[in-house]
Amino acid sequence: MSTVVGTDQALRARAARVVPGGMYGHMNAVFMPPNFPQFFARGEGPRVWDVDGNEYVDFMCSWGPILLGHRHPVVEEAVAGQLAEGDVLNGPSARMVELAEVLVDQVPHADWAMFCKNGTDATTLGLTVARSATGRRKVLVARGSYHGIGGWSMAPTARGTTEEDHLNTVFYEYNDLASVEAAVAGGDIAAIAVTPIRHDVYRDLEPCAPEFARGLRAICDRIGAALLLDDIRCGLRVDMAGSWEPLGVRPDLSAWSKSLANGHPLAALLGNDAFRDGAQKIFATGSFWMAASPMAGALATLRELRESDGIGAMRRAGERFQAGLREQASAHGLVVNVTGPPQLPFLTFAGDTDFARATAWAGECGRNGVYLHPTHNWFLGAAHDDEAIDRALQGTDEAFRAIRERDGGD
Amino acid sequence: MSTVVGTDQALRARAARVVPGGMYGHMNAVFMPPNFPQFFARGEGPRVWDVDGNEYVDFMCSWGPILLGHRHPVVEEAVAGQLAEGDVLNGPSARMVELAEVLVDQVPHADWAMFCKNGTDATTLGLTVARSATGRRKVLVARGSYHGIGGWSMAPTARGTTEEDHLNTVFYEYNDLASVEAAVAGGDIAAIAVTPIRHDVYRDLEPCAPEFARGLRAICDRIGAALLLDDIRCGLRVDMAGSWEPLGVRPDLSAWSKSLANGHPLAALLGNDAFRDGAQKIFATGSFWMAASPMAGALATLRELRESDGIGAMRRAGERFQAGLREQASAHGLVVNVTGPPQLPFLTFAGDTDFARATAWAGECGRNGVYLHPTHNWFLGAAHDDEAIDRALQGTDEAFRAIRERDGGD
Repeated sequence: MSTVVGTDQALRARAARVVPGGMYGHMNAVFMPPNFPQFFARGEGPRVWDVDGNEYVDFMCSWGPILLGHRHPVVEEAVAGQLAEGDVLNGPSARMVELAEVLVDQVPHADWAMFCKNGTDATTLGLTVARSATGRRKVLVARGSYHGIGGWSMAPTARGTTEEDHLNTVFYEYNDLASVEAAVAGGDIAAIAVTPIRHDVYRDLEPCAPEFARGLRAICDRIGAALLLDDIRCGLRVDMAGSWEPLGVRPDLSAWSKSLANGHPLAALLGNDAFRDGAQKIFATGSFWMAASPMAGALATLRELRESDGIGAMRRAGERFQAGLREQASAHGLVVNVTGPPQLPFLTFAGDTDFARATAWAGECGRNGVYLHPTHNWFLGAAHDDEAIDRALQGTDEAFRAIRERDGGD
Repeated sequence: MSTVVGTDQALRARAARVVPGGMYGHMNAVFMPPNFPQFFARGEGPRVWDVDGNEYVDFMCSWGPILLGHRHPVVEEAVAGQLAEGDVLNGPSARMVELAEVLVDQVPHADWAMFCKNGTDATTLGLTVARSATGRRKVLVARGSYHGIGGWSMAPTARGTTEEDHLNTVFYEYNDLASVEAAVAGGDIAAIAVTPIRHDVYRDLEPCAPEFARGLRAICDRIGAALLLDDIRCGLRVDMAGSWEPLGVRPDLSAWSKSLANGHPLAALLGNDAFRDGAQKIFATGSFWMAASPMAGALATLRELRESDGIGAMRRAGERFQAGLREQASAHGLVVNVTGPPQLPFLTFAGDTDFARATAWAGECGRNGVYLHPTHNWFLGAAHDDEAIDRALQGTDEAFRAIRERDGGD
């Protein structure tokens, strides 16, 4: 990581002039340790390079989209082949039908698919379909969960949103069925939105209790609301069939994006037949939604993930990484919480309520060639081989040592 | 155009099973003449091919995105080169800064740029910035104008939207300042959204009266609201500097998408310094918003458009096409209205209130190798050379003849 003024610093100065705040949204480096880069140049397999040429083992995977490793040759070839034919045309290509068929085959709850571009498109489309099907207005959202930037799912205090944006949102507590029962008591419920695990920013990851998932399913069945699973962050990392399939709980609607085409822009809403008519009656569209090249990329991604047992590979890599982190922290006398499925790991330090230690540690990781985040869950990919994990663990060990030397042990 | 059961029919049957209604949104073939294809295979310059191998001179340009012709070699090379380096990474690439600088230089009202993916992202981001900057809630929208699928801009009757989605939208009539004055009288106005020309579906295109544009600017200045120009459909076809620059009226915020990267997925909100702080304080993001390859494509598109005077080329081609259509209709004894800037032409038949004649004529155009739309404006591109226009005019002449033979003259 560069400490002299380099390309990243020069670009930040230029960006400050022509981009509000120099950068916006989740990729803004203000959310990262101070020495982290803002601008990136390239990626290859499990590694990325910033604009100053610093190399990192990548544990953010572009915040989820990179599933099989950066620039996976099979996916890139499929995308390039489709671009050479046609991408954005006057209507969809055959790839749209092929991809819808693959997803309907692969995801047991799904009878149909609609494609869009952003994760926010997919979750908001899900709510619109639920409202269209039920004729009701309200949506339940777990307090602290992120479902994109639709006004309905933002915090009521979010700047630039209005009181009216939040009038139909009712909050519940994740893994707390009593709070859900209280939230549905007001009636008029079109949908309950839920993430497969609790992966809120600024907290340890928490699995979904199977009885909570089953309880949500039962409540939706009882009141005739849509169970909308937001699988945008976990999707294709936990289970090809959807992240609640291991729990045996099937949603009515599920929102997918990020990893679907290994970095190429695509999102999807999947649904069951009970919501087909509601879906058919809405008007939803976008200029690039039917682009063929990300759909060709998704077909290649899904085939490659299945044939190579990519989820198994990233789970094994994540288990090694999580075990290594626990051992290292313990050896350095530091108390940490390593949480999350191995494919979406995260680490916090005990008592580190302001995340100052996590930020310092992540900064040391960066200095030692490991890119991970102090307050947001990380992402493993199928390209994280033993060599990448070994190299990363060397960096994290150095980082724990630096923290120990700076702060002392626990 | 195929009349036997071909690939398109087979794909429609498969889509009917796995896509609600077989297709959704503006590309749904139900909005087109019955013999039109749903699925497309490829494009090259000013021509497209459907999945049954039928070739058309393309006057929809993928509903706007294709500005320089399909698969423009310079743009495709820039995109491929960027994909080979890095596209969706842990942060933006240098392309983001370069593109923001180019747009700020090119568009006089703009001091900054934010990038996103859908046109709806850009218009909704504009409203969010306006609300953040003004602390107000309401937005003015011209009745019948399309600004994407955000609930705020949809018709209050739109399926799956709620009463609350529309509470902060106040409608005015395009080109009618008195209706704007009436609409702002209620106060709490954050923004006035407006398209550069009136290009509503199902009606002749109508230029913006210069005094209307100046009047909107004066009202926004008086009440301290943002003037938000939705340049998604006209942008880069009318004027490189923004579609109201010829009128000498500068908006505070402008929304761009479609043509920005010649078919690659990108949208942008541009704004002036009065709204920079408001923009800086919102949270807006998407997984693919910082993708570098469409930004590389946009840099190439803007350079190519400028260096080749692409707007001049499409204007001249459109003038020839519009003049040819008028002459042909007259020669066949048919009364038509050919409207719109030459770069975004449109044709209706006099007295054809249900668009039955327009639909039949567009269907005959399709049969004769010309793809255009019966109820939505068309799009010219810089690749529409004399040969393409000559060929198209042969097809439209045959189509007028068929309509005349079927219906008789006016």
